[in-house]
Amino acid sequence: MDESVAAGLFTMSLIGRRPKVVIVGAGFGGLAAAKEMADLDVDVLMIDARNHHTFQPLLYQIATAGLDADDVCYPIRGVFHRQGNARVRLGRVKAIHKETKTVTVDDGTAIPYDFLVLAAGAVTADFGVPGVGEHALGLKSATDALTIRTKVLESFEAADADPALVDDGVLNIVIVGGGPTGVELAGGMSELVDRVLRRDYPGLEIDRARIVLIEGADRLLGSFASKLSKRAEKRLVKMGVELKLGVAVAEVTAASVRLDDGTDIPTSTVVWAAGVKANEIGTALGGELDRGGRILVGKDLSVPGNPDVWVIGDLASSPTGDGRPLPQVAPVAVQGGEFVAKAIAARIEGRESEEFRYRDKGSMATIGRNAAVVELPNGRTLSGWPGWITWLGLHLVLLIGFRNRANVLVNWAWNYWTYDRGSRLILAHTQPPTD
Amino acid sequence: MDESVAAGLFTMSLIGRRPKVVIVGAGFGGLAAAKEMADLDVDVLMIDARNHHTFQPLLYQIATAGLDADDVCYPIRGVFHRQGNARVRLGRVKAIHKETKTVTVDDGTAIPYDFLVLAAGAVTADFGVPGVGEHALGLKSATDALTIRTKVLESFEAADADPALVDDGVLNIVIVGGGPTGVELAGGMSELVDRVLRRDYPGLEIDRARIVLIEGADRLLGSFASKLSKRAEKRLVKMGVELKLGVAVAEVTAASVRLDDGTDIPTSTVVWAAGVKANEIGTALGGELDRGGRILVGKDLSVPGNPDVWVIGDLASSPTGDGRPLPQVAPVAVQGGEFVAKAIAARIEGRESEEFRYRDKGSMATIGRNAAVVELPNGRTLSGWPGWITWLGLHLVLLIGFRNRANVLVNWAWNYWTYDRGSRLILAHTQPPTD
Repeated sequence: MDESVAAGLFTMSLIGRRPKVVIVGAGFGGLAAAKEMADLDVDVLMIDARNHHTFQPLLYQIATAGLDADDVCYPIRGVFHRQGNARVRLGRVKAIHKETKTVTVDDGTAIPYDFLVLAAGAVTADFGVPGVGEHALGLKSATDALTIRTKVLESFEAADADPALVDDGVLNIVIVGGGPTGVELAGGMSELVDRVLRRDYPGLEIDRARIVLIEGADRLLGSFASKLSKRAEKRLVKMGVELKLGVAVAEVTAASVRLDDGTDIPTSTVVWAAGVKANEIGTALGGELDRGGRILVGKDLSVPGNPDVWVIGDLASSPTGDGRPLPQVAPVAVQGGEFVAKAIAARIEGRESEEFRYRDKGSMATIGRNAAVVELPNGRTLSGWPGWITWLGLHLVLLIGFRNRANVLVNWAWNYWTYDRGSRLILAHTQPPTD
Repeated sequence: MDESVAAGLFTMSLIGRRPKVVIVGAGFGGLAAAKEMADLDVDVLMIDARNHHTFQPLLYQIATAGLDADDVCYPIRGVFHRQGNARVRLGRVKAIHKETKTVTVDDGTAIPYDFLVLAAGAVTADFGVPGVGEHALGLKSATDALTIRTKVLESFEAADADPALVDDGVLNIVIVGGGPTGVELAGGMSELVDRVLRRDYPGLEIDRARIVLIEGADRLLGSFASKLSKRAEKRLVKMGVELKLGVAVAEVTAASVRLDDGTDIPTSTVVWAAGVKANEIGTALGGELDRGGRILVGKDLSVPGNPDVWVIGDLASSPTGDGRPLPQVAPVAVQGGEFVAKAIAARIEGRESEEFRYRDKGSMATIGRNAAVVELPNGRTLSGWPGWITWLGLHLVLLIGFRNRANVLVNWAWNYWTYDRGSRLILAHTQPPTD
């Protein structure tokens, strides 16, 4: 039985009831898919392990104390207050049963689906480097970002109480990975240390705090035009960030980062922004995966042999002209989500789905105040202040919710005019109530 | 050697160097004292166990998801960026050595002082009721407030996943203590459940969520005029809050609150706002304590027999005309802080200190949108919308920092116009980075 016949028979079986669409993951892709289905005659169930959507491009600003979690995150249930056909379920999908067409979440509940959209994204990958799991911090969730913020602030407090710790590198912040996340984090940390913590700790020798950015390739921002890489490198160096290009991390310990050229950088704060791997839900599906754990999908983003399962965003390895999968960035996820909603509509109406075509939206990374690099789809570039304003405006517009936008605007204006960072709180959110 | 002679000799010993003032606690009292010493020729060291000042009157808004921690808290070090004579030390004071004039913090460091100001405040008191420590949540810190927020949201998520739990009272929120904190929390929870969670959980029978406010006395807000108590009670009942007046809690378990009249209220969320006891630093001092653990002080707020140690705010049991100590509220702490700075200035100049005189600023509590009760110092009262606007304006003005005020204003406007609460995030801030 070929796939189109199977799909046809399947459509027949739905006559008389609304199809159930289960979407796993409320990131950029999952939310875009669900919203695009607002007028579709289906029941949408959004499943996510967290109760909030995370605007991942701004996580580094939580880590550098410029914003707090509720500026960058948005409650998923709030997204669907006005969308009658969508429900939300908190849970982590543990298994996918293609035969019975159900997914099982971590409390053991089996949830049936007619159409399944997998949008579970990616997690931090350590690439087998020893010590990363134990001693380095990732930056994929608000919890991650708050953990980094707390670690940095606690390190400076420790040095303030015992200045001898400065000799052990307690003020050093080492960031591994020179992509947009690493670059933005390094720039943000430099400003935090130089502009704010310098004033917070008048008794500390702040100039001994090193911010080191490590990248295995010979330039930062490898996916950008090389002149933008140069600009970012120049700017970061001017801000006091030490760049280590063309070297790899050999090991991370509790007290240092050891590079493969033998250098040892003493530090107690290591952020691992060197790469991601797909969420392990791909293994649960049992389909073919690429090297990064991504699920191989067809030109319509459905899983070969499983025409009622689609994969979008960071979790999908989608075919492109040059053989490389699409990049793991937000616009790919959003466009994939919108596409899959249309594909499901087509399936219900018995039409053939089109092929997914990604329209490149360009890419951007901010380095610091008045400085960002932007690469437009037509190959043109922006940097410096024009790039920065473009970056600011676009991120404000893309944030969900008027309240989040207004809060972020207030905080950015404050941070800009005063060189301050108001969110530098050390909080233990899960401590016992006796604290 | 009488006290004035001792003080005189002591002043002599300071000639030729700046006196060291150690302030323990960066609450309302400690901060007021430190700021009032800005122009004094002393070195001020502020010691606090947290790195931020907490605007405690708004903690209930974190717990009810209307504000996030960085709206309500302010980094202590930021307060002193422009105050050259003040430093900050993160730490918990464990011992006070009056002979050597040092305090010891939790990492073992001994810190010398010439003048010591104890402003360590109060913590939640369980009054020996079984189960409170294990199963009830306090509301004295941002961590406490975030724990309550998380507990409520997790309970609703649990019920959404398994509606049978509603029979076990998982949606019920029980608040013990009918003072301003309990009243504000009950009103805020009622709005959160009725306006926001009702829309978040369309599949749940929200009307089965009970919000119960328990008070041992026969009226709420016992320190207010009785007509204001009546108004608050009427309003809360109208908002769906169940009042249990004149009953005490016999025991708190993991599944219920048992009252001394035999009633059992099934719930997994219990907030204990029934009272506080002084920080145990009073024991470390070795002076005389009152029933609530507060340190008995003289009319100049110094400790009898220790003229170089002052106690202010919730930690002080200060003599008043009617024999009862001053109430444990913010204005007493602020005025005490300002007074003690002047007393230290007088001591340095060899002048006699005046007596502390508290000027009553009135009291207020908000119940919900457009509803608050206000008692002015002249005995006049406000309630309803005028009371609410007064409450809003005063709290905005009293918040530290323009950024915090602007953020709170944005969030309040948002919450007011949309009936939404944007901070309803379930976050585990201390989870390992692999999350």
